[in-house]
Amino acid sequence: MAVTDFPITNLPFGVVRRRAGQARTYAAQAHICTAFEDRILDLHACVEEGLIDEPALLEPVLNTFMGKGREAARAMRARITELLTSGAADAHLLPMDGAELLLPMRVGDYTDFYASIHHATNVGSMFRPDNALLPNYKWVPIGYHGRASSIVASGTPVRRPNGQTRDDSNAPPVFGPSKRLDYEMELGMVIGAGNPLGEPIPVAEALDHVFGFCIVNDWSARDIQTWEYQPLGPFLAKNFATSVSPWIVTLDALEPFRTSAFRRAEGDPEPLPYLADDAGFDITVEVWLRTAQMTEPVRLSRGNFRDMYWTVAQLVAHHTSNGCNLLPGDLLASGTISGTAKDSRGSLLELAWRGTEPVELPTGETRRFLQDGDEVILRAYCEREGLPRIGFGECRGVVMPAPQS
Amino acid sequence: MAVTDFPITNLPFGVVRRRAGQARTYAAQAHICTAFEDRILDLHACVEEGLIDEPALLEPVLNTFMGKGREAARAMRARITELLTSGAADAHLLPMDGAELLLPMRVGDYTDFYASIHHATNVGSMFRPDNALLPNYKWVPIGYHGRASSIVASGTPVRRPNGQTRDDSNAPPVFGPSKRLDYEMELGMVIGAGNPLGEPIPVAEALDHVFGFCIVNDWSARDIQTWEYQPLGPFLAKNFATSVSPWIVTLDALEPFRTSAFRRAEGDPEPLPYLADDAGFDITVEVWLRTAQMTEPVRLSRGNFRDMYWTVAQLVAHHTSNGCNLLPGDLLASGTISGTAKDSRGSLLELAWRGTEPVELPTGETRRFLQDGDEVILRAYCEREGLPRIGFGECRGVVMPAPQS
Repeated sequence: MAVTDFPITNLPFGVVRRRAGQARTYAAQAHICTAFEDRILDLHACVEEGLIDEPALLEPVLNTFMGKGREAARAMRARITELLTSGAADAHLLPMDGAELLLPMRVGDYTDFYASIHHATNVGSMFRPDNALLPNYKWVPIGYHGRASSIVASGTPVRRPNGQTRDDSNAPPVFGPSKRLDYEMELGMVIGAGNPLGEPIPVAEALDHVFGFCIVNDWSARDIQTWEYQPLGPFLAKNFATSVSPWIVTLDALEPFRTSAFRRAEGDPEPLPYLADDAGFDITVEVWLRTAQMTEPVRLSRGNFRDMYWTVAQLVAHHTSNGCNLLPGDLLASGTISGTAKDSRGSLLELAWRGTEPVELPTGETRRFLQDGDEVILRAYCEREGLPRIGFGECRGVVMPAPQS
Repeated sequence: MAVTDFPITNLPFGVVRRRAGQARTYAAQAHICTAFEDRILDLHACVEEGLIDEPALLEPVLNTFMGKGREAARAMRARITELLTSGAADAHLLPMDGAELLLPMRVGDYTDFYASIHHATNVGSMFRPDNALLPNYKWVPIGYHGRASSIVASGTPVRRPNGQTRDDSNAPPVFGPSKRLDYEMELGMVIGAGNPLGEPIPVAEALDHVFGFCIVNDWSARDIQTWEYQPLGPFLAKNFATSVSPWIVTLDALEPFRTSAFRRAEGDPEPLPYLADDAGFDITVEVWLRTAQMTEPVRLSRGNFRDMYWTVAQLVAHHTSNGCNLLPGDLLASGTISGTAKDSRGSLLELAWRGTEPVELPTGETRRFLQDGDEVILRAYCEREGLPRIGFGECRGVVMPAPQS
């Protein structure tokens, strides 16, 4: 994690707890905090001391604060900037080292989209060679509901799942550990102010309902997925764990990194009017791997969020276009972020092309899919000439062996 | 709703609130209650008076009580039976009329299965004529995650959704009100004691994790579904609303209606060992419709839950077989309950065979799909020679026009 992830122009929100046995630097309860350079500012303590007037920051998760909307987050970042600049809150600045970073919010519902046309084309060409990109793709922001209960904080080990798979279409399926465990590099949009059931969010207002972004690892068991996913979509192939990064980078911090130079190719249809938008974000995303043999991780891929076919505003508008209600803290993930270059592919399935082109590692090891002991480290950051770099920190998870089945 | 739904052998759990302006018969706060014949026993009041020793019944939803597991529910039903038999709690018996029945629990995650082979075959033959029942069906209990935030209590009006549809594969899709709105008659299993992430529930213990059953209407926009569902499953076609009945009928009340005489036909494969179970439930399910022209509803269909291909224990065991964690109050719906007889089909899509065989109503009206003003009323009950009948009450919802798009 780069120290430069958290300049004063970032000020992301998270929830921190003291590790057991650690000196009493952090509160034993979960406290809402922000990250600043290599330190953490305890916002809960600032409220208690009267430096900040916002009771929602006394809660153990960010949901209530998120629900106050984008203006409230903007005003709070301005106040925190004052405190950090003046030194008035210096007593509540704590070292980042040793902090236990918890899930920032209680996720009521988790939706996973499929917004990268490059990812959809890659995966489609493996699973349906004669029918890679389905006819609806360029019209409908495809998404499905994921599992909220198994969303875990970065650093939580992930157990390889058991499940049904069938390699031989003439034999019965078997039940046992997945042999094709994968990661997916995604960004997650966390909802701020929600919408009542039955009242869609217009695309022009959609970004006002997004509190901020985080990194999401949508762990996937490809062999389970292949056998189960028709006709109702992925289920047990995905819902054993989803990791999220601890700091929610606000939309205001990301604002300078918006871009519209992206996505649609010549001949692609104009989006239907309820989806009219072209506001992308220039966010670099990286996947790193540390096998049990490595001391330092190696980078497997580097892509960019601006390469998505559908924008964040389009995803929010589409999701609510039928009246579906979003609640503060709900998580909308982008789907795997892949570009056109081979080294921009955001899953091992794509990098090793379904196992046919194993990835070679500096240790001499190869990977078709993840092995037990592998640690996956996802990073994301924004860089632009003349602006301070801002980052998301990391989303980490190490693969543990499957339980006895 | 039949008075005989709630004999003393039923004692389902629900949450009740006084309607605004009503005499102070019910508490203004949400109170956990049970239904007894044509009355409601206020369990919250019983705890406050010291007649029942269970602080979890003071909460506004059943989740904490559900999480105490099946033994706790069993003991509570025994205590309530004593109170009702002795008359000791008669002061807290209130009339059913005028009670506002709320959502009994806060649903963290909602899963919808597809456990009726007759429904899967019917729908499959419409959407994929040459490939009706997919090869995985008889091995994998197919399911997907639904939307928890849009689960509504029985009686809540349901707005027809807008969405993308495409009738003509040579023309762009259009956005507007769904023209193929449907209901689905399902039963829902509500989780009692959960399981930790990474620790599957063995099939033999699965029913101990189920608190009880309710009725579920999985409203579905078939035209939106057809266009959006590949490759990741239904999304906006389903997540605009899901209605649930107010009373959770406990597993102990249903115990006398278990049956194993059902489901698998000759030649069907034995389930894999982790799914070994054949404990069905004999529960009659009925769909009634009241159009705006009718004073009384008419019955559209009558099916039975024993006709499902997968059992409740199999659904729970499969769901957790990869380590996925279930939490108290989570909802697992069965999927549409259809049998082999035409009048046992649990959706209008099937009854009117995708609009090709319109359903004729006594008023002279016909229905291919639901029209604005139609009220759908789902009922379920158990009958067996020598036992008191027990019922689920009703799950109602009236269709409102789509909002301006």
